[in-house]
Amino acid sequence: MQSITSNQNNRVKEWRKMQSKKGRLSSGQYIIEGWHIVDEAIKHDQQIDAVIVTDANFLDQLEVDPAVTDTYLITPEVAKHISATETPQGVFAVLTTENYHESIPEKLGGSWLMLDNIQDPGNIGTMVRTADAAGMNGVIFGKGTADIYNPKVVRSMQGSQFHVRLYSGDLAVWMAAFNKHNVPVYGTELNDQAISYDDVEPTKQFALVMGNEGNGVSADLLDKTDQNLYIPMNGEAESLNVAVATGILIFHFVK
Amino acid sequence: MQSITSNQNNRVKEWRKMQSKKGRLSSGQYIIEGWHIVDEAIKHDQQIDAVIVTDANFLDQLEVDPAVTDTYLITPEVAKHISATETPQGVFAVLTTENYHESIPEKLGGSWLMLDNIQDPGNIGTMVRTADAAGMNGVIFGKGTADIYNPKVVRSMQGSQFHVRLYSGDLAVWMAAFNKHNVPVYGTELNDQAISYDDVEPTKQFALVMGNEGNGVSADLLDKTDQNLYIPMNGEAESLNVAVATGILIFHFVK
Repeated sequence: MQSITSNQNNRVKEWRKMQSKKGRLSSGQYIIEGWHIVDEAIKHDQQIDAVIVTDANFLDQLEVDPAVTDTYLITPEVAKHISATETPQGVFAVLTTENYHESIPEKLGGSWLMLDNIQDPGNIGTMVRTADAAGMNGVIFGKGTADIYNPKVVRSMQGSQFHVRLYSGDLAVWMAAFNKHNVPVYGTELNDQAISYDDVEPTKQFALVMGNEGNGVSADLLDKTDQNLYIPMNGEAESLNVAVATGILIFHFVK
Repeated sequence: MQSITSNQNNRVKEWRKMQSKKGRLSSGQYIIEGWHIVDEAIKHDQQIDAVIVTDANFLDQLEVDPAVTDTYLITPEVAKHISATETPQGVFAVLTTENYHESIPEKLGGSWLMLDNIQDPGNIGTMVRTADAAGMNGVIFGKGTADIYNPKVVRSMQGSQFHVRLYSGDLAVWMAAFNKHNVPVYGTELNDQAISYDDVEPTKQFALVMGNEGNGVSADLLDKTDQNLYIPMNGEAESLNVAVATGILIFHFVK
């Protein structure tokens, strides 16, 4: 195991750069941190390029073999330097970004969630966890939605990114592919053309588009769906939180 | 309108103290901030003790009459001093805490949400918004749940606190009251005694207990429910976010 004590070390500089999308695109790698998510990555046989710890004993707890995996021992100061949090747990891993999973599978079926311009990393993470809990096949990050490997998004997914497949792409192109494979595409909106989600029978095959926290799904995408849905509200709230709305819709479908 | 330019001013000191529960209990008041929520408070005829702005023109936009309501003009520095946010919008209001709505209504019916030891202010706010959207009668903040008037909770409720009634109290006492009024009480857990939420028919009368993010509803409360429910999950996620789970359950009930 290599020991690193300086923030000026070239590897440390590389790891720190992975906080930005530019840095991740350049290295083809991203960094995860915290016991739970590193543990999940190891358990789910992710391609792990390096494990970085502030205490050599952590490797045993993670069941990482330094003979097989590149491992680094760093100081708490270096940990703080490369961390996206205020109080790092001292456990990091470097993973391959897999080219942002950009190609659409040739066989397309099952249930899918599409994210159109979702801003808040916490909402994105919660939506991916919900898709995972429902046993969905994949989540597609569309235009304007925070990056799949953004450290805040990565943290808020809590390991669900290793259970459900994540894609980054043009939602209009994906919608055409769903259409070709006879997977019905549902948008969400509030207008005369939309129907109550409760009028759609539970189904195993569907693709659901959720939109921006303030503005909803963009108009050009809503035009391309098979059907747009709304959630009837009896109260005075102007809207539901987008992750809550996603949960209500998905769990109605997979019932 | 009184003008205040110093953080040492006694009123400013009072307002700042309202960030803490001790300060709110001592004054019987709490402070809200931001255009949307102050506007909602005014529209819903809340008891407003003062409106505080950094620009006199804001009063016109809020439709506040300085002849009727106590108004204060403050500097951006004072705004920063009394704000719970990094970048205050320069619009505040001081409201009466209404003794934390502690007594149980004599007539008890309809639909209710109980929060047992919910930690995250964002989750609490989202759950209150969801209860509001579903047209529920009230939300009860039980032991361990953040304070109703905690500034972060207040902010994340986004005005729903003026639509749905909030209570603070002992959930065991409330559960006994629901029992007396024949309102079925549902807990949430993952064990042999729990049934799938989908096996409960939609209903207009119910009280739902949601529990701590990590540990769920406390065992002594689960013993006192009429029935405990779980949400079947097909995927690998360990759990749903508590606010998402709340949305799925409530919108199933009120369907």
